[in-house]
Amino acid sequence: MKGVMLNVNPTLQFVDVTHLIGPQDVMEAAFVIKNMAPFFPAGTVHLAVVDPGVGTSRRPVALKHNEQWYVGPDNGLFSLVLNSQPPDELVVLDKPSYWRTPSPSDTFHGRDIFSSVAAHIASGVSLDTLGSPIETLKPLHWALPIADQQGVQGWVVHVDHFGNCITNISKKLIHDQCNSLSVKCYVGSTIIASIKTTYNTVPTGEPLLLFNSHGLLEIAINTGNASEMLSIRKGSPVNIVFTDDC
Amino acid sequence: MKGVMLNVNPTLQFVDVTHLIGPQDVMEAAFVIKNMAPFFPAGTVHLAVVDPGVGTSRRPVALKHNEQWYVGPDNGLFSLVLNSQPPDELVVLDKPSYWRTPSPSDTFHGRDIFSSVAAHIASGVSLDTLGSPIETLKPLHWALPIADQQGVQGWVVHVDHFGNCITNISKKLIHDQCNSLSVKCYVGSTIIASIKTTYNTVPTGEPLLLFNSHGLLEIAINTGNASEMLSIRKGSPVNIVFTDDC
Amino acid sequence: MKGVMLNVNPTLQFVDVTHLIGPQDVMEAAFVIKNMAPFFPAGTVHLAVVDPGVGTSRRPVALKHNEQWYVGPDNGLFSLVLNSQPPDELVVLDKPSYWRTPSPSDTFHGRDIFSSVAAHIASGVSLDTLGSPIETLKPLHWALPIADQQGVQGWVVHVDHFGNCITNISKKLIHDQCNSLSVKCYVGSTIIASIKTTYNTVPTGEPLLLFNSHGLLEIAINTGNASEMLSIRKGSPVNIVFTDDC
Repeated sequence: MKGVMLNVNPTLQFVDVTHLIGPQDVMEAAFVIKNMAPFFPAGTVHLAVVDPGVGTSRRPVALKHNEQWYVGPDNGLFSLVLNSQPPDELVVLDKPSYWRTPSPSDTFHGRDIFSSVAAHIASGVSLDTLGSPIETLKPLHWALPIADQQGVQGWVVHVDHFGNCITNISKKLIHDQCNSLSVKCYVGSTIIASIKTTYNTVPTGEPLLLFNSHGLLEIAINTGNASEMLSIRKGSPVNIVFTDDC
Repeated sequence: MKGVMLNVNPTLQFVDVTHLIGPQDVMEAAFVIKNMAPFFPAGTVHLAVVDPGVGTSRRPVALKHNEQWYVGPDNGLFSLVLNSQPPDELVVLDKPSYWRTPSPSDTFHGRDIFSSVAAHIASGVSLDTLGSPIETLKPLHWALPIADQQGVQGWVVHVDHFGNCITNISKKLIHDQCNSLSVKCYVGSTIIASIKTTYNTVPTGEPLLLFNSHGLLEIAINTGNASEMLSIRKGSPVNIVFTDDC
Repeated sequence: MKGVMLNVNPTLQFVDVTHLIGPQDVMEAAFVIKNMAPFFPAGTVHLAVVDPGVGTSRRPVALKHNEQWYVGPDNGLFSLVLNSQPPDELVVLDKPSYWRTPSPSDTFHGRDIFSSVAAHIASGVSLDTLGSPIETLKPLHWALPIADQQGVQGWVVHVDHFGNCITNISKKLIHDQCNSLSVKCYVGSTIIASIKTTYNTVPTGEPLLLFNSHGLLEIAINTGNASEMLSIRKGSPVNIVFTDDC
C-alpha cells in the first residue's frame, strides 16, 4: 500500500497508527479512529482498511470531516469519529482512473483502490473528482452502555499493550447520572470500588478504576496486566453500581 | 540501521515492509520481496537483511533490476524477484570506505555494511563505486510445484496476519494444465472443493479457495483463521486434483 | 503522539526504534537507548516513554548529551546512555505553554507533555525555553556484574527477536580481568565452553557464546532460539568461570 501511494506522490509522509486491530474487528478500528484522529493536524488523510466485505457490494468511500479526510470501506469504520454528524463531503469511489488499476483484486482494495485514492487526496485532488456524491453512509448502530440512577452497564472495547481494559463508559455518562463517584464495578473475576486518578494510588499489583486519557473508564492493575490477572477480555461486561444516593 | 542511514543522508524516506519474517527464513523473505517490490516506484532501494550466514564467507551484494536496487547478503533473498533473469548490474560490496566502519561486526552486517551502502545508493552513488562487478548470484533452486493434467502438488509458503494460507501454486500454473477450475484441494485437516473469487461467497466460518491479490492460490476461512482452524502451517503440502477432464 | 508532534511541526521525520519494551521495564528501555543512540546523527531528539510513575511526583525532563537530545520521565531511562557523565544541559519541563495542553492527562504524559516538547526541540526551541535548569537526574544504581580473576557473574538483560540472550558482561570487563578467553559459562539449563566470533562456527542447533555487535557477551544457538531451548529469560544469572590462569 505504501508503495502504491509513493507511486502517486513520492513526498508523502506516513504515520502507522496501528497494525494490531483484530481481524475483521470493525468496532475496534472505529474506536481507535475516533480516539486518535483529533490529535492529528488539519489536512490529515486517514486510510483505514478493516474490510471483511472486500469484493462484495459494500461501497468504497471517502469523506471529509473536521478538516480531515477518511478513506475506506463503507462498513461503519467512520461512524464513531463522525459521532452522528453528517460528513462535510461524502463520495462513493467510482472513478477507476484514480485507482491503481481499473481491474482491482477482489481481495485487496486497500492496495488497489483505497491507497491510491488516499494519496491523491493528500496531493490535493478534490473528493468530487475522485467519486460521486452520496447522501449517507451505511447506518451502523453501536450498542451503547445502559445507564440510570442505579448504575451503568457497558463493556470492554479495547485491551491495550499493558493489559489495561478500556470500556465504552465515559466520565460524562456517569456524571450525567450521578453526582457521586462512589461506585462498585463488577468485571471479570473481581469487584473494584472507587475511581482513582492514576495507577500509583494503589499498591503494586492491586486493581483500580480510572478515567483514561480519552475520558473513558479503564480497569487497570498498578504495574500489572489487568486483562490477564482479572480474566477480562474485549467484550467482557462491566457493571457499575452507584453506592451513594445520586 | 536507520540511524546509520540518516548519518549518510538525513533526507531519506523509509518504508518498513515487514519485521515479521521468521528467523533465518530466506525463502519467506524472498517471497515477500518478490510480491511487494513491483508496487514501489522506480528508484526504490530495497534493503533486506535475513542473513543466517553473517560473518561467514557469504558475499555482501548490491544489484539493480527493473529500475530498482537491492542490497543484502548473497543467499537467495533476491532469486524470486529476479525470476531467473540476470540483474542489470551486480556488484560484491568490497569498498569499506562506504561502510559504517572498515571493521564491521561479525554478527550485524545489516548495521555496519548494508544500511550504509543502501543509503549511499539512495543518495545517487553508483554501484560500481560501491563494489566490484561479479557475474552471478549464488544459485538457489527453489523447489517448485509439480503439475500435470491430473493435478498440482505445491505447499504453503506464507501464513498472513489473518491466518490465510498462501501457496506457491499460481493461477497461471493451473490454467496451463487445465481449462476447468473444478478441483478438489487436500490440505491440512480438510478437503475444499471449487475456487471462489472473494471471502464472502461462502458462509461465515466455512473454508474456501481463491486466487489472492498476487495471483496465488490461497486457503482461507470467511471471517476466520484458516491456519488455526484447519491446522495448516508454513510448509504444509497442498494437493490439487482436477475433477473435470482438462 | 505522532499526531501531536505533527501539529507542532509537520516536517518532522520519525524513526520508531522499538515498541516492544516490556511494560514498565525501565532497565530494558535504558539498555536499548544506550545501544542505539550512538548510531543516530547529531541533532537527533530521542523521545522515550516508559513511565510507570506517570501522574505522580516524578519529574518530566529534557537533556542534551553528545549533541543529541533526550525527553522523558526522570526515572533512570537515560542513566545508561549518560554513563555517569552529567548531561550538557538538563531541565525540568515546567512550561505548560509548550505542552499539548496545560491540563495534561494523569496517565499519558507521552501524548500531552513529552511529544509536544520533543517536537519543539526538533524545531529549534532551546531547553532553557522549555524548562528550568536542574542539577541532577534521579540517581539510579544499576546492579553491575561482579568480576575478579576467578570469573564474572552477570545476567541476561535482553532477549532479542531471534531468542539470542544478551548479557550485561562486556568484552572489556572480561579482558580487564583475564588475558585468556578460555571460559566456562553456566547459564539456564546448560554449560557453554569457549567464545566464538559468529554463529556459524558451531553446528546448527548447538549453543555458543560470542560478543555481540555492541561488545556484550551473548548466548546464542546457531539458527535456533537460545531463550526457548536453554530456558533462559531476561534476568537469568550468567556465571563465567576462567579456566586458564589469567
